[in-house]
Amino acid sequence: MPERIVVALGGNALQSQDSPPTAQAQLEVVSQTCEHIAELSARGYEMAVVHGNGPQVGRILLASETARDVVPPMPFDVCGAMSQGYIGYHIQQCLRYSLRQRGKGYPVVTVATQVVVDRRDPAFQSPTKPIGPFYTAQEAQTLQAEKGYAMREDAGRGWRRVVPSPRPQRIVEIDAIRLLWDHAIVVACGGGGIPVEQLPDGHLQGVAAVIDKDFAAELLAEEVGADVLLILTEVEKVAVRFGTPEQRDLSSLTVGEAARYAEAGEFGVGSMLPKVEAAMRFVRSGPGRKAIITSLDRCLEAMEGRTGTVFTAD
Amino acid sequence: MPERIVVALGGNALQSQDSPPTAQAQLEVVSQTCEHIAELSARGYEMAVVHGNGPQVGRILLASETARDVVPPMPFDVCGAMSQGYIGYHIQQCLRYSLRQRGKGYPVVTVATQVVVDRRDPAFQSPTKPIGPFYTAQEAQTLQAEKGYAMREDAGRGWRRVVPSPRPQRIVEIDAIRLLWDHAIVVACGGGGIPVEQLPDGHLQGVAAVIDKDFAAELLAEEVGADVLLILTEVEKVAVRFGTPEQRDLSSLTVGEAARYAEAGEFGVGSMLPKVEAAMRFVRSGPGRKAIITSLDRCLEAMEGRTGTVFTAD
Repeated sequence: MPERIVVALGGNALQSQDSPPTAQAQLEVVSQTCEHIAELSARGYEMAVVHGNGPQVGRILLASETARDVVPPMPFDVCGAMSQGYIGYHIQQCLRYSLRQRGKGYPVVTVATQVVVDRRDPAFQSPTKPIGPFYTAQEAQTLQAEKGYAMREDAGRGWRRVVPSPRPQRIVEIDAIRLLWDHAIVVACGGGGIPVEQLPDGHLQGVAAVIDKDFAAELLAEEVGADVLLILTEVEKVAVRFGTPEQRDLSSLTVGEAARYAEAGEFGVGSMLPKVEAAMRFVRSGPGRKAIITSLDRCLEAMEGRTGTVFTAD
Repeated sequence: MPERIVVALGGNALQSQDSPPTAQAQLEVVSQTCEHIAELSARGYEMAVVHGNGPQVGRILLASETARDVVPPMPFDVCGAMSQGYIGYHIQQCLRYSLRQRGKGYPVVTVATQVVVDRRDPAFQSPTKPIGPFYTAQEAQTLQAEKGYAMREDAGRGWRRVVPSPRPQRIVEIDAIRLLWDHAIVVACGGGGIPVEQLPDGHLQGVAAVIDKDFAAELLAEEVGADVLLILTEVEKVAVRFGTPEQRDLSSLTVGEAARYAEAGEFGVGSMLPKVEAAMRFVRSGPGRKAIITSLDRCLEAMEGRTGTVFTAD
């Protein structure tokens, strides 16, 4: 049986810090990223891909809000759906090419994915994710009063809307993803998924929220019974004392060790911490399950046990 | 064997003339549309859904161009991909609900779809589809010179970019659509598909073009071996002498009759004509294949042979 991997792609897999935030520049970065993914696939791993969408959905929302006198602005859930179409299209186009260069004719298919969140999630009590344009204090007050937006001052640069980041509870399109898994590389849960809540009458309804893509990837990995959750980011290994002279890179971590380091504040909130938490959660979810955090360009070596940080049960 | 249908949804299935062009208003129309589709599914038909995207992609492009000083504008192929995510999300959300109301647990899944067009298609010599904002004559001249856009004066309202409307040659994600077909309702080829061309080195590359969604639906119907191409629009039946006192609604047409009426200019270019051409093409593509043009709210009766215009072989 081939090993089954859910790959979570970080922001650097879609966009370079050094390039303008254009679609063409993204396509060039995605093209490089897909070479790595195709190489994994060519070694026989079965895969699904989950990508982030922070900068992309931010720009879609910003364009929509900037043009609001000309075109009715889009709600945030729809902006998320649009970013899935945009990024998924680029991955499909590039990954298909990279696979065919290696003689592999697999389909690559992006599934628009809704992910259910729970309105009782404590995240709804303390929204933390800034989205969209900057406003003056007065504009912020108006938006708060008229639309009920939570607004927060952002480091002296102005006021921004903040939305909650609840945990993913259920992947609505999991049935379709399972159908495709054995025969295709599926791109799913883009940006953590389009957040929806289930209403008492059974309707799903979009929610202004941001689901962490690493948590969504973790849930997907559980649901498809993956062997490995492979979280790709900018660093080769997870470190403690990160950025200090005493930095120590870690080749392996038991979930117990990881929990103690996390407790001690070793991992950056909103950067490494959610990745470590997703890794721990996946390892705990079933016997034999492994999580790896490494960089995109070392993913192959990491799968072969030669680098990266491997999370295992205690 | 259940009958297999490809359903092509017209613009009125997504948006009402009487409502503002907001996402919320679209969701309400889509919700009604999905009741009809779910009812077809509940009667045992197997289905894929193709939708238009003209107004939606127009608004995405307009927002993007309006905000160009704040956010780099998106190329037209990316706008198309974004519209597939947006509309597909709404259809997934509503259709899933309508199916479950009928005790049907099928997956509903939107597949981001690229469709290959041929650069030698004569459509590239005479672009006809206006997209995006209006410009002054001077701005139009600049865009033509600097970006090579084809620009055309639009009925005294200003200048607009025009793009070609080539025929669909090949559906890139057809393999994934076939995989899903037996087990799910697939939403595919949204807006006629994201137009791409195949470069000599094997890369696919986005093209600024608009593929007619009825032609894309026809190609999809051929490729999945559908029994029926069901084209839903605003009228219950195709008519000749349309809009005159001598208007005659047609209950059936052989492809020969349809060709003669088309030749005589009976069908509106850009409205009924492409639908009739798609219907004729599908009927000619294989024995026993049937095409029906009718209105959304009569689709069930039309499938039962009680209304609509049925196209059959000579």
